[in-house]
Amino acid sequence: MLIVMNHNATQADVDAISRIVAEMGFRAEPIPGSERTAIGVLGNHGYVDDTKILELPGVQRVLHVSKPYKLVSRDFHPEDTIVDVAGVKVGRGCRPVVVAGPCAVESEDQIITTALFVKSCGAVMLRGGAFKPRTGPHTFQGLREEGLKLLSKAGKESGLPIVTEVMSPDHVALLAEYADLLQIGARNMQNFDLLREVGRVRKPVLLKRGMSATVEEFLAAAEYILAEGNDQVILCERGIRTFETATRNTLDLSIVPLSKELSHLPIMVDPSHATGKRSLVAPMAKAALVSGADGVLIEVHPNPEKALSDGPQSLTFPGFKQLMSEIDSLTHFLGE
Amino acid sequence: MLIVMNHNATQADVDAISRIVAEMGFRAEPIPGSERTAIGVLGNHGYVDDTKILELPGVQRVLHVSKPYKLVSRDFHPEDTIVDVAGVKVGRGCRPVVVAGPCAVESEDQIITTALFVKSCGAVMLRGGAFKPRTGPHTFQGLREEGLKLLSKAGKESGLPIVTEVMSPDHVALLAEYADLLQIGARNMQNFDLLREVGRVRKPVLLKRGMSATVEEFLAAAEYILAEGNDQVILCERGIRTFETATRNTLDLSIVPLSKELSHLPIMVDPSHATGKRSLVAPMAKAALVSGADGVLIEVHPNPEKALSDGPQSLTFPGFKQLMSEIDSLTHFLGE
Amino acid sequence: MLIVMNHNATQADVDAISRIVAEMGFRAEPIPGSERTAIGVLGNHGYVDDTKILELPGVQRVLHVSKPYKLVSRDFHPEDTIVDVAGVKVGRGCRPVVVAGPCAVESEDQIITTALFVKSCGAVMLRGGAFKPRTGPHTFQGLREEGLKLLSKAGKESGLPIVTEVMSPDHVALLAEYADLLQIGARNMQNFDLLREVGRVRKPVLLKRGMSATVEEFLAAAEYILAEGNDQVILCERGIRTFETATRNTLDLSIVPLSKELSHLPIMVDPSHATGKRSLVAPMAKAALVSGADGVLIEVHPNPEKALSDGPQSLTFPGFKQLMSEIDSLTHFLGE
Amino acid sequence: MLIVMNHNATQADVDAISRIVAEMGFRAEPIPGSERTAIGVLGNHGYVDDTKILELPGVQRVLHVSKPYKLVSRDFHPEDTIVDVAGVKVGRGCRPVVVAGPCAVESEDQIITTALFVKSCGAVMLRGGAFKPRTGPHTFQGLREEGLKLLSKAGKESGLPIVTEVMSPDHVALLAEYADLLQIGARNMQNFDLLREVGRVRKPVLLKRGMSATVEEFLAAAEYILAEGNDQVILCERGIRTFETATRNTLDLSIVPLSKELSHLPIMVDPSHATGKRSLVAPMAKAALVSGADGVLIEVHPNPEKALSDGPQSLTFPGFKQLMSEIDSLTHFLGE
Repeated sequence: MLIVMNHNATQADVDAISRIVAEMGFRAEPIPGSERTAIGVLGNHGYVDDTKILELPGVQRVLHVSKPYKLVSRDFHPEDTIVDVAGVKVGRGCRPVVVAGPCAVESEDQIITTALFVKSCGAVMLRGGAFKPRTGPHTFQGLREEGLKLLSKAGKESGLPIVTEVMSPDHVALLAEYADLLQIGARNMQNFDLLREVGRVRKPVLLKRGMSATVEEFLAAAEYILAEGNDQVILCERGIRTFETATRNTLDLSIVPLSKELSHLPIMVDPSHATGKRSLVAPMAKAALVSGADGVLIEVHPNPEKALSDGPQSLTFPGFKQLMSEIDSLTHFLGE
Repeated sequence: MLIVMNHNATQADVDAISRIVAEMGFRAEPIPGSERTAIGVLGNHGYVDDTKILELPGVQRVLHVSKPYKLVSRDFHPEDTIVDVAGVKVGRGCRPVVVAGPCAVESEDQIITTALFVKSCGAVMLRGGAFKPRTGPHTFQGLREEGLKLLSKAGKESGLPIVTEVMSPDHVALLAEYADLLQIGARNMQNFDLLREVGRVRKPVLLKRGMSATVEEFLAAAEYILAEGNDQVILCERGIRTFETATRNTLDLSIVPLSKELSHLPIMVDPSHATGKRSLVAPMAKAALVSGADGVLIEVHPNPEKALSDGPQSLTFPGFKQLMSEIDSLTHFLGE
Repeated sequence: MLIVMNHNATQADVDAISRIVAEMGFRAEPIPGSERTAIGVLGNHGYVDDTKILELPGVQRVLHVSKPYKLVSRDFHPEDTIVDVAGVKVGRGCRPVVVAGPCAVESEDQIITTALFVKSCGAVMLRGGAFKPRTGPHTFQGLREEGLKLLSKAGKESGLPIVTEVMSPDHVALLAEYADLLQIGARNMQNFDLLREVGRVRKPVLLKRGMSATVEEFLAAAEYILAEGNDQVILCERGIRTFETATRNTLDLSIVPLSKELSHLPIMVDPSHATGKRSLVAPMAKAALVSGADGVLIEVHPNPEKALSDGPQSLTFPGFKQLMSEIDSLTHFLGE
Repeated sequence: MLIVMNHNATQADVDAISRIVAEMGFRAEPIPGSERTAIGVLGNHGYVDDTKILELPGVQRVLHVSKPYKLVSRDFHPEDTIVDVAGVKVGRGCRPVVVAGPCAVESEDQIITTALFVKSCGAVMLRGGAFKPRTGPHTFQGLREEGLKLLSKAGKESGLPIVTEVMSPDHVALLAEYADLLQIGARNMQNFDLLREVGRVRKPVLLKRGMSATVEEFLAAAEYILAEGNDQVILCERGIRTFETATRNTLDLSIVPLSKELSHLPIMVDPSHATGKRSLVAPMAKAALVSGADGVLIEVHPNPEKALSDGPQSLTFPGFKQLMSEIDSLTHFLGE
């Protein structure tokens, strides 16, 4: 439930309402806006009787929100959120960002070479997996903490903030020491304990959409993070599972403008995992930016044919350089 | 099966092979290229023994194609096909086209007003349904032949070629009298008798992807048309059916660059039917063009709220004008 | 819209309402029931003002039906429909039927041998394709009219009614000469001209669910047939398209009890096409019957490994005999 | 890779091979069978050269397994696994089990009443959620440890083993104190740290299929548990996500016979979550048993209309009693 105040309601009005909401057994979350304050009512299971509230001073109207998210919704928070990743700003009005790097950290040489190269082409963050979620237990699971150290070293040498995936609540503290942006992978989008845990640390989070998550479930997953007090969340579309097998997943680009209507959070797109096919990465990256995405994640590997995971979708160095030059022109065009 | 000839093979070599293929009970389709000729072998059910053929003069190699299409594949026909719709060229290297108009022809005033308006904004073809496929029998099914006449009149007054859907083999002749581009709707993508029938008339065809058709099935459907001798086929992505219900369908833009790898046929995108939501049409139209689409179909209606079908996805006149101005800049940027 | 009459309303009341509905520009379809009459209002596009009707003598209430089907709905027609296929009864309360035969008619020997064998095991109808819908144009498309003649001969020799697919409106008359039950295939579920045409002949119809058709769209497709005056329709679940590729399609058995709630039409299940895998046919056939299906369609071929289409899903003769013995026990158990 | 030994190979042969496999940097897992021993080779990334191994004494042949699972596959372990849940046996040849109870534990009265009732009707295990995964953070999340205590009390009073969901690796130890069967929910099917953790405790696990998990991914998830040494795993089909919205999910019953071909693990079916609709639960439960399922999970609630979660799919007490009587007859019929 959302209580919308008159534009001339006083702080005392807001406080009075918060008190009454608390007496009803719920939690009131005042959301100040440039024009008026709204008060989110959290903690209710189902419909709440609003008769008492409608009579209180300063109340304009009450919205019964049936959606499973409130804090992430634009109704509650009309202004765009800008996420700050170690100084790199992500969100509407900022220059679209390119996050690049290999699927997995494999060696010091591999990650440092890649970091320096993608930096030289204009990437502003470095990605690389240390803990890898893999379908079966008998394949490469990542270098784990050793991988984190290498990634961190590459970040320092290149000056790029680093992004890496956290898979378990009890790893969050460790990962938060190394990473500038904590990634929640698609398979963990509804790992609610993990979501709560990253909501409690003061690090920005990149939340990937689950393979079969609706837009509503995706935003509700982000709500878990915001509900713990962390509003530095970047959404990430990475393809959904459909009947089509010609591409690894089906990139659902419509979610970019749609999520911007429904939510104030920034959204990025990962065309590498979405398509699973090197030749489709560049056209889909550019299409994502034109549709309004705040950034793209691109897999780059010095020797894709030798990559321990996801080689067929990684760009080569020359391929990435070419794409960055095209993105640069496109960004200029869009920014004009 | 595809027989690839040496680049210095003679016409006599090709003829000899065609004769032998015919003796084997199959049909040979020579496909001359700029460098060499290939000969498609059609009519075989399953694998064909190629020993005899490999020994013939002029043969370089034999490809056993497991895909259910040959004539539409780029292997068979490496050069891009350019489709000519009453003078408007569609395909790689041509200026991307915008086809616009209402979902259904409703009245003379509606269709002529729309035609003149979209022409003034830069659209190069007029779309409008006369025969409408509808989920249930108790809703508006189109003005049928009366609608065709109105559409034709609007086409003449505006000078725009017209596009309209044909739903049944026995309507093909009638529709071909009026339309410059015959549309096969998503529900009829595997109506094989209809595909064969439009393959026999000398009119270009706009083939929409079925709601649950894989890329392979889509190209195989186009193959039915080409196999009858009509290679003037434009593919059209219009969204696939997935679990996501926030949009009407899920626009699968990756098919644009993918189909260009697999086939020589042009491809257009229909963001109106794909998204079903007015506010998503413009971003998706622009994303389609950046991903390499040869054109877009946009639904426009003078009074969307009063439309007899698909109102919520139709652009208003001002909305369309705005989009055309953005597309114009984008096309310039892409063409540079 | 559905007008429900009081149980003591007179025929004159019903006639008066029909007249007024006609004056409003709609069509009234009285639906007599054992307790009361209802009057379906057809031909309206959207909501109809019911003020005038509610005041008329004999009217109990008016239901505004938002579903795209009415004649097929159980609200309109609470009693189960029993379909009579040349003497074989299909529907609730009848013994579940087994329809068996090869995917395609290939030769006289093949179809007659199969017909006699499946008859001897207890099948009550013979299936076989003469006109085959195939993904690509270069594969076996059926023996066409020659196939119909062979099928008809096999039907006569075995004494089994025959079921075969009709793919085009202009073939309906021809097919209706030979077939006892006209099958509409999954790819043609929304070929509306074909649906209307089979609605006009006086032959029962087996309507297969489209690969990506919702239950609502499936029932709305059946509505096209009933709206033309033919209520002898059997629904058929044959698997839907999902992300899962371990089976050819995903058999959606829940539709069996669900369709019985929503509609009065019988429903059969085709586990052969649904699973595409011989070893899964028997367990799914039995599961279908337990879930309430009125019958099953089973593909049987004398030499599945040599079948021109769909060999991997066809049962062998011994496999079919074994299944029929299990079905026989199960049917006895269910009938007790 | 799987090394299949001759039936007269000695223990010394097996040991020698294990040693050599270890020298190659992999792990050997001998799998003794009634006829012969096989040795699974784990830890390899990709293809392993088998020349050396094929020459060793006692080796019959080497199978290169491309699937992401080995220990769960029937090739590795041809005999059916029987899982023992506090004395209740689950698997082929055992009497099919019925696990029943409410979606969530809500109060002492609710859970004890339900436990005693379902026991009296023939259920052999009690289910109930204490930690609940919910789409959004603002709805009832379960009574947590308090719920566990109530569930445990109900288990003791009724004499039924209890089943409850564990959502986080750090809760496994706590849950294992109370539960007889640890449930991994659909959203956590690829929470790999959680899978590993339940693999390390000596409690049987009920692994639910992810909403968009293929059969292969499902078995690969089970592999994580077996790879840690716990082979007491029961698979559970609970519906997959498709385009169909008439049911909550689409119950994929074909997986029952299919998983029995691919794996030695038992499989149960949850028709309550799959359909989300009370009236479909009984027909689907019976269909599951006929298709070969080793058991079913049924939601039962004393007052479904007042349930804090999933009320519409819970059976009432009379509804459950009726179903149990039908299942009892069916089980007798199937067991004959």
